[in-house]
Amino acid sequence: MPTNPFLPALNRRALLSALAVLSATSGTLISGAARAADSVSPLPSWNDGPAKQAILDFIRVTTDPASKDFVPAEERIATFDQDGTLWVEHPIYSQLIFCFDRVPALVRARPALAGVDPFKTVLTGDLEKISKLPLHAIEVIAVATLTGMDVETFQADVKAWIAEARDHRWKKLYTELTYLPMQEVLTFFRANGYKTSIVTGGGQDFVRVYSERVYGIPRENVVGSAVGTKFGYDKNGKPFLTKEPKLLLNDNNAGKPESIHLEIGRRPRAAFGNSTGDKQMLEYTKAGDGARLSMLVLHDDGKREYAYGPAQGLPESKVGNFPQALYDEAKKDGWLVISMKDDWNRIFSFEDSATK
Amino acid sequence: MPTNPFLPALNRRALLSALAVLSATSGTLISGAARAADSVSPLPSWNDGPAKQAILDFIRVTTDPASKDFVPAEERIATFDQDGTLWVEHPIYSQLIFCFDRVPALVRARPALAGVDPFKTVLTGDLEKISKLPLHAIEVIAVATLTGMDVETFQADVKAWIAEARDHRWKKLYTELTYLPMQEVLTFFRANGYKTSIVTGGGQDFVRVYSERVYGIPRENVVGSAVGTKFGYDKNGKPFLTKEPKLLLNDNNAGKPESIHLEIGRRPRAAFGNSTGDKQMLEYTKAGDGARLSMLVLHDDGKREYAYGPAQGLPESKVGNFPQALYDEAKKDGWLVISMKDDWNRIFSFEDSATK
Repeated sequence: MPTNPFLPALNRRALLSALAVLSATSGTLISGAARAADSVSPLPSWNDGPAKQAILDFIRVTTDPASKDFVPAEERIATFDQDGTLWVEHPIYSQLIFCFDRVPALVRARPALAGVDPFKTVLTGDLEKISKLPLHAIEVIAVATLTGMDVETFQADVKAWIAEARDHRWKKLYTELTYLPMQEVLTFFRANGYKTSIVTGGGQDFVRVYSERVYGIPRENVVGSAVGTKFGYDKNGKPFLTKEPKLLLNDNNAGKPESIHLEIGRRPRAAFGNSTGDKQMLEYTKAGDGARLSMLVLHDDGKREYAYGPAQGLPESKVGNFPQALYDEAKKDGWLVISMKDDWNRIFSFEDSATK
Repeated sequence: MPTNPFLPALNRRALLSALAVLSATSGTLISGAARAADSVSPLPSWNDGPAKQAILDFIRVTTDPASKDFVPAEERIATFDQDGTLWVEHPIYSQLIFCFDRVPALVRARPALAGVDPFKTVLTGDLEKISKLPLHAIEVIAVATLTGMDVETFQADVKAWIAEARDHRWKKLYTELTYLPMQEVLTFFRANGYKTSIVTGGGQDFVRVYSERVYGIPRENVVGSAVGTKFGYDKNGKPFLTKEPKLLLNDNNAGKPESIHLEIGRRPRAAFGNSTGDKQMLEYTKAGDGARLSMLVLHDDGKREYAYGPAQGLPESKVGNFPQALYDEAKKDGWLVISMKDDWNRIFSFEDSATK
């Protein structure tokens, strides 16, 4: 039995390699292409092409009562991976930065930790050193920063952090690093009666804090990795739930369709992902009857965002790994691959703010 | 680790005693009281009194923007136990009848089972004999009938059964044995912007099949006991999920608030239950800030439905046990107890059909 609550939020193997590139990342800020002129389109940040057309066609055939592929309202479920699909995941998952940022307060509460690794190393703030911590050390940090507290205290801490913390490259709030074209897809699906859910390898309790505000997705529609909680009473007899250091749901790979069944109970009609961790969700979605849409975001725009695969000759990456085999499966089984470079005329809402 | 998928759907101790009364149950059908004349009320099957008033007051203060207890739309979550709260649970849980009813088909597929207990005993159809099976035997039946199959096959089987099977007392479909006053509460809450969820010790996969049609509750809003599922591929490479004989969520007692956190992610504003299995959910709900409503259905109407407690001197029962201590906690902490006898002028929608 896995007992490590950290792993769902991270790709084990990806971790060290991701940390290794942290300090090498350049801070280049490239303005996006001019916004598409077509103000009638529900997807203005998308260039015309097969990816955009597939989305438009899917919505049309599944919502037109005269269509053979019409989908009744209650079956309109669309699921979206978060890291690398709805927001930036490079050079490292935002939730891991949150964990590191929590270490100083943890050490203030338990000063003896200051001299003990891995806390000592994280306290240096030296990302090069932090990147060399072994995986086990990262797990210790995660258990110490993501479990052991009351769930409402944790939510309040995430809320405060996400309102202030900024990324290293753009110096933006992490919530500003969501992809505008995908926000348009979320809105377009909902406008057509679809329930949109996040299905993330990241922590449910983490993402739920900001999902409504940032994505318009209520917290009960966030499915993610989760530790168990334990019901108990405080000294005044008031009940509360404590986050336990015990992995309940690992929402990666096969865990995605399994968690979709557990928390939603329906096979999605449409699913969006960007890496091997999403493969089974996309397969499960596409294997249903009638019209189904499975799409993968390919990070092929190193100027405006990041370029990684290794599919299509892109640089190798262990964070958000997208191998050629996944690309080939997508082509073979009729999934659509979204090229960030070619399909998106604008990536972030802040890109052209100077021209507004 | 518990590994028995049967237990969440049943109260272990309740089982034998429940089975024991099956054959002793009389088939009396008593017409309900005349329907309340007040056609303006959103709760026509409720008599005026503290229970009805508490519901009306709660909705008023939490939805009036001028009220200090106003609740924003996204926080309007109300949770409802099913067995004994939304529909009849005596003399035995409907899902267990489903399990027994599946045994003949199981034996046809595996004829060797016909001569082996407990299958042999269940095949006799003799409820007196079945009631004497030991708990372990019932668990064997449950594992055999609720796990091992693809989730979509299971859903189709439940759908077919629930459309045909009838109870022993009223000879009605089980879905007709829902409480009309509680259906009115569900509708009233939703009309006031509340999301209504079922939080049941019964199986999620079972209840989700009919929840939309019967209660207007979409399947993703059903939280219940659940076994794990396993993702795999059939011989043509098509992915599917198999129900595993491994208990993932036991949605009784402390498991209710824990599962609410897992699948909904918010403390409910209102919660309804009827037994000790709902105690922690009601405590958790009531302990939140602002206006909160916790209510318990007391089965004190042996003529129109069943009478059991043992609270308030009602007969002892292990199915839906409602002890005096729970009654006392309710009074002390400001929960409301609903008397089926006094608060409901009509229990079932079929009751006065003869007078229509």
